[in-house]
Amino acid sequence: MRRDRWLLPAGVEEILPPAARHAEQVRRRLLDLLDSWGYDLVMPPLVEYLESLLTGVGHELDLKTFKLTDQLTGRLMGLRADMTPQAARIDAHYLRRDTPVRLCYLGPVVRTRPDEFGGAREPWQIGAELFGQSGPRADAEVLRLMLALLECAGFSSLHVDIGHVGVYRALAREARMEEAVEQELHEALRRRSRAEVDAILADLALPARSDRHLRTLIDLHGAEAEFMALEAILADAGPEVQVALTDLKAMWRVVDQAQPGIRWHFDLAELSGYGYHTGVVFSAFVEGYGQAIAQGGRYDEIGRAFGRSRPAVGFSADLRLLLKLRDEPAQAPPAILAPCCDDKALREAVRALRARGERVIEVLREGAEQDQGTGCDRELVQQDGRWTVVARR
Amino acid sequence: MRRDRWLLPAGVEEILPPAARHAEQVRRRLLDLLDSWGYDLVMPPLVEYLESLLTGVGHELDLKTFKLTDQLTGRLMGLRADMTPQAARIDAHYLRRDTPVRLCYLGPVVRTRPDEFGGAREPWQIGAELFGQSGPRADAEVLRLMLALLECAGFSSLHVDIGHVGVYRALAREARMEEAVEQELHEALRRRSRAEVDAILADLALPARSDRHLRTLIDLHGAEAEFMALEAILADAGPEVQVALTDLKAMWRVVDQAQPGIRWHFDLAELSGYGYHTGVVFSAFVEGYGQAIAQGGRYDEIGRAFGRSRPAVGFSADLRLLLKLRDEPAQAPPAILAPCCDDKALREAVRALRARGERVIEVLREGAEQDQGTGCDRELVQQDGRWTVVARR
Repeated sequence: MRRDRWLLPAGVEEILPPAARHAEQVRRRLLDLLDSWGYDLVMPPLVEYLESLLTGVGHELDLKTFKLTDQLTGRLMGLRADMTPQAARIDAHYLRRDTPVRLCYLGPVVRTRPDEFGGAREPWQIGAELFGQSGPRADAEVLRLMLALLECAGFSSLHVDIGHVGVYRALAREARMEEAVEQELHEALRRRSRAEVDAILADLALPARSDRHLRTLIDLHGAEAEFMALEAILADAGPEVQVALTDLKAMWRVVDQAQPGIRWHFDLAELSGYGYHTGVVFSAFVEGYGQAIAQGGRYDEIGRAFGRSRPAVGFSADLRLLLKLRDEPAQAPPAILAPCCDDKALREAVRALRARGERVIEVLREGAEQDQGTGCDRELVQQDGRWTVVARR
Repeated sequence: MRRDRWLLPAGVEEILPPAARHAEQVRRRLLDLLDSWGYDLVMPPLVEYLESLLTGVGHELDLKTFKLTDQLTGRLMGLRADMTPQAARIDAHYLRRDTPVRLCYLGPVVRTRPDEFGGAREPWQIGAELFGQSGPRADAEVLRLMLALLECAGFSSLHVDIGHVGVYRALAREARMEEAVEQELHEALRRRSRAEVDAILADLALPARSDRHLRTLIDLHGAEAEFMALEAILADAGPEVQVALTDLKAMWRVVDQAQPGIRWHFDLAELSGYGYHTGVVFSAFVEGYGQAIAQGGRYDEIGRAFGRSRPAVGFSADLRLLLKLRDEPAQAPPAILAPCCDDKALREAVRALRARGERVIEVLREGAEQDQGTGCDRELVQQDGRWTVVARR
């Protein structure tokens, strides 16, 4: 992968040979994996009317979305910045099944600013969404699939953060916080700023129990054993909090059994997709890279905007980022040189080799075999009247 | 492929399951074919600075290109409407080889108006470009590859139009026409409007030979035998015209020998890519569809804008259009149902089946086998303590 900053906008990259061929191979491997788990591929458009793209997804995605004017109608269109809402629209509008629907996708999305996924403005979003089933088993399937996809892309020794936005949501509701305050406290928690959290809570003067629970969230993180000990602090919280904690642990148990070797980090203050998510949230990290390489969670409300609220859980990653982090040396494929010659038997030999998956390069000018054969390890030569593949001298 | 016009802008479509899976299979087959001919895949970005996208490509592409403002720099960017100039830029800037370079690409392009390729505004452009080699053999390779690609996409009985813009160019130059008049006459020829051609030529009052040659172009078309007879009219034209005619026939001969069964139509008034092309031009048609399904030609000048003028010939097609014209019924893939059960041996069985390429769908709620198993033709059941795949009752 080569960049030339003076030519391409910041955060925009292209993939050249031979890396592009490798990228295509990884792309196929990952799509095959998603297919083998029963996830049906969808290919939503790059450009849609803005209402369709942004309905029910919040302000953040709006800011990330490039706007275009449709010259046919004068209506505003957007360049997709996230494929998840497109998948939700497809589930709600087109498929309309009552049973679980599993969808997957892979394609470029474009962002106005390089804010996520390692500064890219044109990530290749790969993801999977499971609609129509709530509960820890559905959550676990999607998280397991995310881990399987990362493994298939060559990542081992993953660190996985898991949390549940329902805990904070329920505590904030119990405390009857105003939305602006809820948002402010959530930001302070995400930044783990104890001073800010203390200041906000001091102002609110909540009942002792609520105050203690909210104050405690900032410390409620750690590996599984540590977390299980800490969460006792929430033992006297309301039933919504208990359900969220039970679901989170149930999901973890299924995934930990199925994919051992993950380093887990529970975190109830991790609310990154807060505007969007409604249940469990998870992110995967690798050593040496500061941001998540894949993330997901439950977002049961999104379908409502499309007239059909269904349970939903999904994940996504940036395939370009995955490729860049692995940075596997790509090599030009081996090839066979065919001489510059109008012979029917030669044409047949070339056709047969190509049909078998061999790469055959034809010399385009008589006498140019030497020049034009760079990269060919074999060549077609006539031996006893037959065209035969031999090693190149 | 299903559309919902009230939801998606005109000329914008999405592909849903199971058609998307079929589209992905065709996509892979076509990319493998291009690879087997020695064409290296490139993956240029969707968004670039406008100068890079539009340098040297003419006004028509400018009108087709959506403009975006880069929020980081305030510079104007464009959403690619054609990948050919991107491939030329990659050849000129990055690869800088002296020997022939073969590149191919496949990806979405976006157009402001649905003017080409069957009214699509978001075609998936698939194409191949050969840089660094002039002459009929290079032209023939690209045309043969275009025909092989169409065959691989399921099209037989092709009609192919071939022409050479060099003939008209040379005649216009000989006649010392002004650019505006040359453009006007070219439009009249393309529309085959004899009245307009006559009117323009009457105004020009050219020497008899030039007048006769230009007037004759409108009739210079037909199948191979017919064309070979007609072109005698140009026997007294200048050397440039002779070279163009010789090259055109030489290319035709190579392709006709290699791919018999094509219905050829020679046409010297077919100048569709005139602003762009410099030599042979070709388009493929199928019965029942009025527009070309793939087209290409020689465009030696394009690299000049990138500081490196190299011979270039290429073709492209819209994969979405090809899929739509074939309209093969796509079926959901067969799948195996795995019961809702936390058993290690079951997990292993599922993993092994998926690794073999089987599609396994897990039941997400106890007792929901019946509901959630729709579309599964087999299931995993425990027999004598082992998980076995059996046909579903």
